[in-house]
Amino acid sequence: MAQVIADRRDVDFVLHEQLIVDGLSKHPKYAEFGKKTIDMIVSEARNLAIKEILPTFREGDEQGCRFDNGQVSVPESFKRAYDLFVEGEWLAMPEDPAYGGQGMPRTVALAAGDYFNGANCAFMMYPGLTHGAALLVEAFGTERQKKRFLKNMFTGKWTGTMLLTEPEAGSDVGNLSTSAKKNPDGTYSITGSKIFISAGEHDMVENIVHPVLARIEGAPAGTRGISLFLVPKYRVADDGSLGEFNDVVCTGIEHKMGINGNATCSLTLGGKGNCVGELLGEENKGMRAMFLMMNEARLLVGMQGFCCASASYMNAVNYARERVQGKNLLQMMDPDAPSVPIIQHPDVRRMLISMKAYVEGMRSLLYYAGFLTDRIAVSDDEAEKARLQGMIDILIPICKGYVTDRAFDVCSTGVQVYGGYGFIREYPQEQLLRDCRITMIYEGTNGIQAMDLLGRKLGMNKGKPIMDLMGEIQKTLAQAKAIDELADFAARLEKALNRLAEVAMHLGATAMSPKVMNAFAFAHPFMEAAGDVVMAWMLLWRAVIAATQLEKGAKKKDQHFYEGQIKSAHYFTQAVLPVTMGKMDAIMTTCTAAVEISEDAFGGK
Amino acid sequence: MAQVIADRRDVDFVLHEQLIVDGLSKHPKYAEFGKKTIDMIVSEARNLAIKEILPTFREGDEQGCRFDNGQVSVPESFKRAYDLFVEGEWLAMPEDPAYGGQGMPRTVALAAGDYFNGANCAFMMYPGLTHGAALLVEAFGTERQKKRFLKNMFTGKWTGTMLLTEPEAGSDVGNLSTSAKKNPDGTYSITGSKIFISAGEHDMVENIVHPVLARIEGAPAGTRGISLFLVPKYRVADDGSLGEFNDVVCTGIEHKMGINGNATCSLTLGGKGNCVGELLGEENKGMRAMFLMMNEARLLVGMQGFCCASASYMNAVNYARERVQGKNLLQMMDPDAPSVPIIQHPDVRRMLISMKAYVEGMRSLLYYAGFLTDRIAVSDDEAEKARLQGMIDILIPICKGYVTDRAFDVCSTGVQVYGGYGFIREYPQEQLLRDCRITMIYEGTNGIQAMDLLGRKLGMNKGKPIMDLMGEIQKTLAQAKAIDELADFAARLEKALNRLAEVAMHLGATAMSPKVMNAFAFAHPFMEAAGDVVMAWMLLWRAVIAATQLEKGAKKKDQHFYEGQIKSAHYFTQAVLPVTMGKMDAIMTTCTAAVEISEDAFGGK
Repeated sequence: MAQVIADRRDVDFVLHEQLIVDGLSKHPKYAEFGKKTIDMIVSEARNLAIKEILPTFREGDEQGCRFDNGQVSVPESFKRAYDLFVEGEWLAMPEDPAYGGQGMPRTVALAAGDYFNGANCAFMMYPGLTHGAALLVEAFGTERQKKRFLKNMFTGKWTGTMLLTEPEAGSDVGNLSTSAKKNPDGTYSITGSKIFISAGEHDMVENIVHPVLARIEGAPAGTRGISLFLVPKYRVADDGSLGEFNDVVCTGIEHKMGINGNATCSLTLGGKGNCVGELLGEENKGMRAMFLMMNEARLLVGMQGFCCASASYMNAVNYARERVQGKNLLQMMDPDAPSVPIIQHPDVRRMLISMKAYVEGMRSLLYYAGFLTDRIAVSDDEAEKARLQGMIDILIPICKGYVTDRAFDVCSTGVQVYGGYGFIREYPQEQLLRDCRITMIYEGTNGIQAMDLLGRKLGMNKGKPIMDLMGEIQKTLAQAKAIDELADFAARLEKALNRLAEVAMHLGATAMSPKVMNAFAFAHPFMEAAGDVVMAWMLLWRAVIAATQLEKGAKKKDQHFYEGQIKSAHYFTQAVLPVTMGKMDAIMTTCTAAVEISEDAFGGK
Repeated sequence: MAQVIADRRDVDFVLHEQLIVDGLSKHPKYAEFGKKTIDMIVSEARNLAIKEILPTFREGDEQGCRFDNGQVSVPESFKRAYDLFVEGEWLAMPEDPAYGGQGMPRTVALAAGDYFNGANCAFMMYPGLTHGAALLVEAFGTERQKKRFLKNMFTGKWTGTMLLTEPEAGSDVGNLSTSAKKNPDGTYSITGSKIFISAGEHDMVENIVHPVLARIEGAPAGTRGISLFLVPKYRVADDGSLGEFNDVVCTGIEHKMGINGNATCSLTLGGKGNCVGELLGEENKGMRAMFLMMNEARLLVGMQGFCCASASYMNAVNYARERVQGKNLLQMMDPDAPSVPIIQHPDVRRMLISMKAYVEGMRSLLYYAGFLTDRIAVSDDEAEKARLQGMIDILIPICKGYVTDRAFDVCSTGVQVYGGYGFIREYPQEQLLRDCRITMIYEGTNGIQAMDLLGRKLGMNKGKPIMDLMGEIQKTLAQAKAIDELADFAARLEKALNRLAEVAMHLGATAMSPKVMNAFAFAHPFMEAAGDVVMAWMLLWRAVIAATQLEKGAKKKDQHFYEGQIKSAHYFTQAVLPVTMGKMDAIMTTCTAAVEISEDAFGGK
């Protein structure tokens, strides 16, 4: 039977053959998570996703959220799905069991999330944001705060959000104007308005916990004067019971291109002078707190985009096998030739193999980023931990920026494979494309990801993280070169990797020179090139494993899968990397037109 | 004041400085269309588009079309806009005045259409399809058919459609099963079901004329047995008066990703055995008739996609000038530096100049294709006419396939410039992206355009058309090389052009070999590369004119515009053409993975 959402064989491959996640179980922290347990978790997640969450996908989009006088109702079907999701204890998979988490490796949580997000990413934002908000409480909360909030959030009894954006402060967070005034009892009175607040108000749970960025009266301007507060919808007493309404009022919801099942709210805090917040962490250290959580949040947005792409690919390949249209090209001249499934047409194959290669490469990359976190968690070696953290830091903008750019492309290709049906709401492809589009924007636009990669990550620690990453790629290259079938692919990746090093040096130097604007006009192309190289690495790594298994003599069913792995690497290194080389040539040219053109010359006046 | 939809200065530049369209007025056919008249036409089109059509853009999307028991109602605001449009006699601008047309050059009609389509392309499908259907009547109709139908269609009193697609016959038209049975009076009884019929049923006019592809009983299978029929919704008497309902029943409309103001209908013909069609043209020559109209239809779909991109660019540049967010990168370290309009940020400038270059290049290309038709119309030289027609034939798949691919990318970038607001329905960007997406699919998917370019057009007439096109590009190169400022850009285009010739030879030869499947797996990348080269040509051509004008000493206001022309060529040749070179390297590698991978290896089973 055709699979949906994500290819289980591929999920298992990354977990057990590429990353060998059950190796973590050697460490006491993850002792319970052997292969069998991991497989059971993924199977259960997959069942829940297919049976209970996927059916909410289209209804969630069609019904959307409704706003009525400050109240927001989610699509009908979301309530049951949410209850099942939290009953299954899926919300805080990798977190501390003492607070309601499951203590599992993050990589396993990502594999489960692969199915959940692919089933309905708009739905998954409710538990996803709750998880993120709870992590802030866990990392920066006092014992009292943890006691009152954490378990209720990790178990999904209450949901969470993140109140950051204001009308004049989107990408420029430092410009926000929500204010906090200290009260005699140590709490703060919060006043301000926030927009674009995902899951900001809804009717699925009894309380919503808002971490809020605000400026304490008299604090410095810019990011240095921003503090983080916990602002619940209903106040929370010491025993965790709910008190009075905390003057957090939803003034409206956005009508959007996609993720319509998620309520994107405008919230007014303290409109009646009655909104009380508790400082979370230290005064004026709000941005630092946000930054610490940012890697996690950005990885999850990457997952969200990727999962749309994965689902789109599964749909496309299933459709292409079944949809009969036109003759096989080799029989075009034979009037009696039968019509064939469109998977036989070369242009459809091109689209499918492109989708396949990107989906596989992105899955490996995202799980790998999660796996690096797990390896830090089980390591006692500080130098190794720093090395792994450095690689995470440099990969995160790629996991968010590059992955969501490419995920959107994959979703568009997924529409194209369906032809006219791709444009019709009855089929899932157009919704996946619409849902996916937001991931390029929120949690730091992809332009900001690119600036982060070039401006902060590349030069971080004198370039050690990028060198470490390149070192890892070299290891795969050495293995691949030893396998005849992969030697050409490895040579192409090596060439691209060496060129990337040149490009990084060039752009890094330009960014430190008076031509800094020019360098940053190529930040996004640089992220694309770096991402392509990382994709090629992931696919070649997969191909090394596959070739080794085929050499050993794999089962028939596995043979197809492994063959497919080699073909993905084949396609990507021969059909995509030459384009990457061209992108890098363009960066080396460092055309000045974008920077030098006068504002008037853009026209339109 | 900020311009909307399309940059008038740029429209005028293509008309009067690049193509010099008023030169056509030397010929008696277009004697009335001097510069002043052309400018007046464009101004009137622009006024109508901005004042009356643009206001229907969002309402058309939100209200959509409604289906009720066979009846379809269009969005409320469309009726007034349609009436004004046909009162203004805009429907058949380039057609014969004897039948209600305005007899103007097609290039001028395209310039007017630039505003109309950019204002609301879903609305424009009603007159656009009417125009296309009427052209079939004009080209293949008997005098009696022309007398009864043509003027009523060209004047917009009745609208038209095109009934081609069936559930099992989309891209594979030859597989259709709608049948026609000859009646004793020479008419045909039509029976069948059609889907995806744009403007197939609506409440704006009293009659709808459907050209229908169907198979006469006993006709050969495949495309060789298809005939074209005229099937009106209400039968039409000799005097043009309407008779009985012709048993064309709308059974439903599609809910779509975009172009929601246009009714996409399922139609059942002859469900009660009472649908009468008249043969249009000869028996079994329906496909030939379609092919003759295809260039026109594909050019218009290219326009439709392009106009979404043009509008998205205008919005983006206006927004980037007004939206204040973040500091200038050069002042990032100064805590007191003011926030600036985002047009100052290098990544925003990269997005804007990319949008600008593509929009300008696409505008020039599309108008140029129209202008070639006009030149044929005023030429008496058969060899020259054939040369021009060859260039049209080779450019059409680029005008449709390449342009709509790139237009969608531009629209996505236009969303990105807006940040979070780009995803919100209150702003136009997300709708332009949604509306644009269909243009990659209908009127022959872009995969089919690519196959047409590689499989039919490239080798047509022993490759003369592509050689002629390259000859035209060489002319521009010779001019550009003589201008110091453009010499580097010209050298880059020349290199790309020479490489394109190699790639075309290679792929053409591969397509004739047993490796034909491999060649066609690179049909789409080839279309991309060819399109990039044509874009670069158009932009360099523009830059030659601009540099010449600047040399002569242009007015201050024009200086900015001309500077912008040179910057577009600068950007495209230095930042995009290197990527094109990479794409061509990939084609030369002709990776076999897409063709060789087994169906099972695609996974998902």
